[in-house]
Amino acid sequence: MFKKSAFLLLLFLLIASPVYAAAPTTESVQLSVDLVWVMIAAFLVFFMHAGFAMVESGFTRAKNALNILMKNFITISSAALLFFLVGYGIMFGTSAGSLIGADGFFLSGVEDISFFVFQAMFVATCATIISGAVAERIKLGSYVLIVVAMTAVIYPVVGHWIWQGDGWLSSLGFSDFAGSTVVHLTGAAAALTVVLFLGPRIGKYTGKKVNVIPGHNVPIGALGVFILWLGWFGFNGGSTLAADPSLVPMVIGTTLLSTSAALVSSALYTKLRFKRVDASLSLNGVLAGLVGITAGCAEISLGGSILVGLVSGILLVEGIRFLDTKLRIDDPVGAITVHGICGIWGTLAIGLFSTSTGLFYGQGLSQLGIQLIGVLAVVAWTMVTLGAFTYVISRFSPIRVSEEEEIAGLDFAEHGSNAYELKEIVLTNETSTEAGTRLALADRLNNLTSSKEKVSS
Amino acid sequence: MFKKSAFLLLLFLLIASPVYAAAPTTESVQLSVDLVWVMIAAFLVFFMHAGFAMVESGFTRAKNALNILMKNFITISSAALLFFLVGYGIMFGTSAGSLIGADGFFLSGVEDISFFVFQAMFVATCATIISGAVAERIKLGSYVLIVVAMTAVIYPVVGHWIWQGDGWLSSLGFSDFAGSTVVHLTGAAAALTVVLFLGPRIGKYTGKKVNVIPGHNVPIGALGVFILWLGWFGFNGGSTLAADPSLVPMVIGTTLLSTSAALVSSALYTKLRFKRVDASLSLNGVLAGLVGITAGCAEISLGGSILVGLVSGILLVEGIRFLDTKLRIDDPVGAITVHGICGIWGTLAIGLFSTSTGLFYGQGLSQLGIQLIGVLAVVAWTMVTLGAFTYVISRFSPIRVSEEEEIAGLDFAEHGSNAYELKEIVLTNETSTEAGTRLALADRLNNLTSSKEKVSS
Amino acid sequence: MFKKSAFLLLLFLLIASPVYAAAPTTESVQLSVDLVWVMIAAFLVFFMHAGFAMVESGFTRAKNALNILMKNFITISSAALLFFLVGYGIMFGTSAGSLIGADGFFLSGVEDISFFVFQAMFVATCATIISGAVAERIKLGSYVLIVVAMTAVIYPVVGHWIWQGDGWLSSLGFSDFAGSTVVHLTGAAAALTVVLFLGPRIGKYTGKKVNVIPGHNVPIGALGVFILWLGWFGFNGGSTLAADPSLVPMVIGTTLLSTSAALVSSALYTKLRFKRVDASLSLNGVLAGLVGITAGCAEISLGGSILVGLVSGILLVEGIRFLDTKLRIDDPVGAITVHGICGIWGTLAIGLFSTSTGLFYGQGLSQLGIQLIGVLAVVAWTMVTLGAFTYVISRFSPIRVSEEEEIAGLDFAEHGSNAYELKEIVLTNETSTEAGTRLALADRLNNLTSSKEKVSS
Repeated sequence: MFKKSAFLLLLFLLIASPVYAAAPTTESVQLSVDLVWVMIAAFLVFFMHAGFAMVESGFTRAKNALNILMKNFITISSAALLFFLVGYGIMFGTSAGSLIGADGFFLSGVEDISFFVFQAMFVATCATIISGAVAERIKLGSYVLIVVAMTAVIYPVVGHWIWQGDGWLSSLGFSDFAGSTVVHLTGAAAALTVVLFLGPRIGKYTGKKVNVIPGHNVPIGALGVFILWLGWFGFNGGSTLAADPSLVPMVIGTTLLSTSAALVSSALYTKLRFKRVDASLSLNGVLAGLVGITAGCAEISLGGSILVGLVSGILLVEGIRFLDTKLRIDDPVGAITVHGICGIWGTLAIGLFSTSTGLFYGQGLSQLGIQLIGVLAVVAWTMVTLGAFTYVISRFSPIRVSEEEEIAGLDFAEHGSNAYELKEIVLTNETSTEAGTRLALADRLNNLTSSKEKVSS
Repeated sequence: MFKKSAFLLLLFLLIASPVYAAAPTTESVQLSVDLVWVMIAAFLVFFMHAGFAMVESGFTRAKNALNILMKNFITISSAALLFFLVGYGIMFGTSAGSLIGADGFFLSGVEDISFFVFQAMFVATCATIISGAVAERIKLGSYVLIVVAMTAVIYPVVGHWIWQGDGWLSSLGFSDFAGSTVVHLTGAAAALTVVLFLGPRIGKYTGKKVNVIPGHNVPIGALGVFILWLGWFGFNGGSTLAADPSLVPMVIGTTLLSTSAALVSSALYTKLRFKRVDASLSLNGVLAGLVGITAGCAEISLGGSILVGLVSGILLVEGIRFLDTKLRIDDPVGAITVHGICGIWGTLAIGLFSTSTGLFYGQGLSQLGIQLIGVLAVVAWTMVTLGAFTYVISRFSPIRVSEEEEIAGLDFAEHGSNAYELKEIVLTNETSTEAGTRLALADRLNNLTSSKEKVSS
Repeated sequence: MFKKSAFLLLLFLLIASPVYAAAPTTESVQLSVDLVWVMIAAFLVFFMHAGFAMVESGFTRAKNALNILMKNFITISSAALLFFLVGYGIMFGTSAGSLIGADGFFLSGVEDISFFVFQAMFVATCATIISGAVAERIKLGSYVLIVVAMTAVIYPVVGHWIWQGDGWLSSLGFSDFAGSTVVHLTGAAAALTVVLFLGPRIGKYTGKKVNVIPGHNVPIGALGVFILWLGWFGFNGGSTLAADPSLVPMVIGTTLLSTSAALVSSALYTKLRFKRVDASLSLNGVLAGLVGITAGCAEISLGGSILVGLVSGILLVEGIRFLDTKLRIDDPVGAITVHGICGIWGTLAIGLFSTSTGLFYGQGLSQLGIQLIGVLAVVAWTMVTLGAFTYVISRFSPIRVSEEEEIAGLDFAEHGSNAYELKEIVLTNETSTEAGTRLALADRLNNLTSSKEKVSS
């Protein structure tokens, strides 16, 4: 396909005659455009996994960084394989009683591979949400089993209910364009379930004290937030499934404005509440704004999206504090608040702000009621099934690492290695041969740049 | 929209009949293609903000990293909101006297949301240029006010002059395809203005000495440069506003070759001048080549773009030295040279290298003269208005942090936190329990890999 | 082009009449779609260079990080310029004896600039593979000369044989859709050649011992792996050269599943073999799965791609161990195994798994034989020519840095600078004025957040 001569021939045929293999028709070209749009959106959603990996490792301790990175790679890989083997069939197969799909396993009989690819990236997103909340204490093996349960069965069932036309929530009129509930709330409910089994990290709560365990590398976490924001344009934008000029720009516009508003509101709110702009809460505010607009990005106005975002940013700050200090639920990266509380908010916001069904547009409370039913059903399904599953596996072997391993760090305990080797550059012994060499070279270089000297502070 | 059954129905309709909602026409499909192109270009420009954040934090000190990251997030968010509320109307609204737009606020009456999204990313780019130059000493609150002034008014006015067909510089024939002047020079002139108010960082100039204050994390800065280069393909390529096969590849080709040439020339030039390939100057050389070709990427030949890039790389090295050692202007990341000096060079280069109007193509000096007028007008407008604004806000409260806060670092002073927690991994006390645990585990692992031992240097 | 009024005019013309400059035809719109697809694929392949830079610097020592980053920037830049000047003509020019192209230098007479841009990114990929294998000991100047030889001549000749329709391997029926051989094996054979000249790093092999020299920043290396995976969707997907709905989704699907399978198999295999999930081998497993499916991504089934990936992951682990401990070839990042061994595997896998020509689909051994001939020819050509070239340049000046420089680190020796300045944040002297300031501020802040305290371990 790649051969230059063939390419030139093709070009020639295109110009010289309309007999291009099967000559392109308006419809076939439209299919090509939609394909390009969905494929690129899928790539962007894929890249969100890099974002999650950076956020989760940056906001936790250095001694667990390798472990978190490995969990993220294992999540996307297992999810893709399992969704191919089982999950796609359960999610988009022919409906059995509006509850579960019953064919399409191994993609047998499935024509549209691009739709599979796009959806496979989503599954992994749902699963990776758990990874951050259970960080720094779960056993790698247990985590993998939980990912298997989520991506093969639990998430696909939720997806079947809402995104397969015959699913019961879909039939009820439940609306969730790109997945505030399907992806984010499902992931957060799962995370909460596992966290309740695990308990907090050693040292997080001592007596009445709530201790802050700061992340080890915020710059890489901030890069992760930027990557997630970028990827989310594909997450929401690609959910149109077509390059529709009347829909896509609105979806991207609401996503941009909601997120911007949430960053501003969380930054300002922390300034008012704590007398400083809190960096990690503000960065989480970005994610809150993204999750908040995910359900309604196609049916909320640009102005409405700003309001949704403003609320998301404040909910984020209060939600994290409430879980951390009142409920004493230890969620190292705030994933349960970001994806759960803001996922619920985003889902309900449709009942308020949807220009076609929302309360604020004079359409009454019925959509809001339907949205609430969906939220409750998804939380119940996820927590009950995953709770039972986690209980069963915890009967065979503890799902948490030993105290000794937790203190040593999971990188060492699970992978026998460290994420960083920085001693050399920080602790150079100035009397060693190496330092001598450096100094000799430094002298040489100093002669070249004698007007400059280095400031050390 | 996301429902599988609806999707299959759509597919069926596409194949079975030409009555696809409104059946696609050649024109509607072309609109879809152009939409996809502009949207993806907008995403790439968005991602440039991650690039700026990494460059600016990597090339400054660790104690100010959080603060710089927050500034970058605040910039993109505020810019998007303000451009929606005010800026778009001033930039692209109906012209009042060729000077300023006067409608389209809140996007009222605006049909093309994709154009708004693409342009919103540009505004933020202009504002974020300031962030690097003022790093490590400006108060966060003052910075935010300056961003508001720039994105709501000062930049949109420049954009109106040049990119709204009725603007006076546009009418004069001033050419700036993707914004060497509109975006980069405007940002750099603003940066210079604020830097003149702020003065240099503590310790930068001691008596006659010019001190180097090295960046704390060049790898993340280098990643930022790669991200910026990537994003710039969208910045220049998307400025075509259409997926035009006769234009887009030339724009991308000139952008690639100019940048490559600038990296090569800055690396070689530093080798000749300082007897070593200077990493941070070479990395800035990449940005210089990008800014240099931004104005002319659609009307300079591939060969011409290489010459533009070669000059950009050398200008960058000499420009940074000149500002730093002769003018003693402290610009921590070299933003004024990259975006200002190379922005001017790129704008004037059209007068020399444009295949349709350039001096070297026998078209005389008139285009060069027009380009010069535009440069002078934009610098004057930006420096006078932002200078006045900065003067006013500095009357109410100092725009610079206190000496105490600057020494402690802005992360601590403004955010009460640190960007990194690396002590643990670097300073492990080998007599502690934790180390004991590690060693015990190490023994176990060593038995498994006994043929290997770790080299520490 | 960017002017709003012109844009609105265009919009008007589009809607009001079919006379859009030259009115779009179905064929012209198809050209636009294909352009968008190939351009975006080119951007993604470009971004792979950021991935390589992060992988290579993260998996080596901090004292050589700057040097590796610079090598990556120099590689992409030189490759783009040289491919424009010389390489494109050799690769895609009119064939002289099926061996080498003989026109199209400076792109003279070349119409399709987008094809050049896409191909230019590939050249650089081939060259950058060398960079990782020779890390931490090659002289920058020698490396640059080797890049020149590879990108101007050696790689383009291989490309001519296989991707120009008149090339002898192409005529023979050799199949390599996206470059397991053309790009990856060529790069790995080149890397092996130079490594044989260089020898191992100081301290790598001491007597009978094989020492591990751990990377300094695995998180940034892991980010690099994610970026490479992302970029590879463009590498394989863009090699279709058209947005073909029947081909692109299969290519992306096989790429996703092969890679996922390779991560899973390498992680599980290291768990079985070493009793732990080895992080750096698993991350390399991802790259192994990508290289393994690159040749066959368009003609292997989804199920077949999983098998190809599973094998790739195990080959990677055993390959790296074999080269490292048996052959004592010091390849700091495992590039020779990833791109060479898995490149050969991917090329041969077509002979087994191709649904049209593979042994397992009842098509006999002939394709496998042709694939083997291609592998041998490319390895021989690359090693002989680059070997001769390297020998010649090593006669003029050593290609390796001095022992003193290697110990001091190439960052210092070649660039007079360091990649990191982290002493300040790690080694804060708690008795200094600065610490005093920090503590005073801390007190102030602590009053605001008195219910929290920081955990240090």
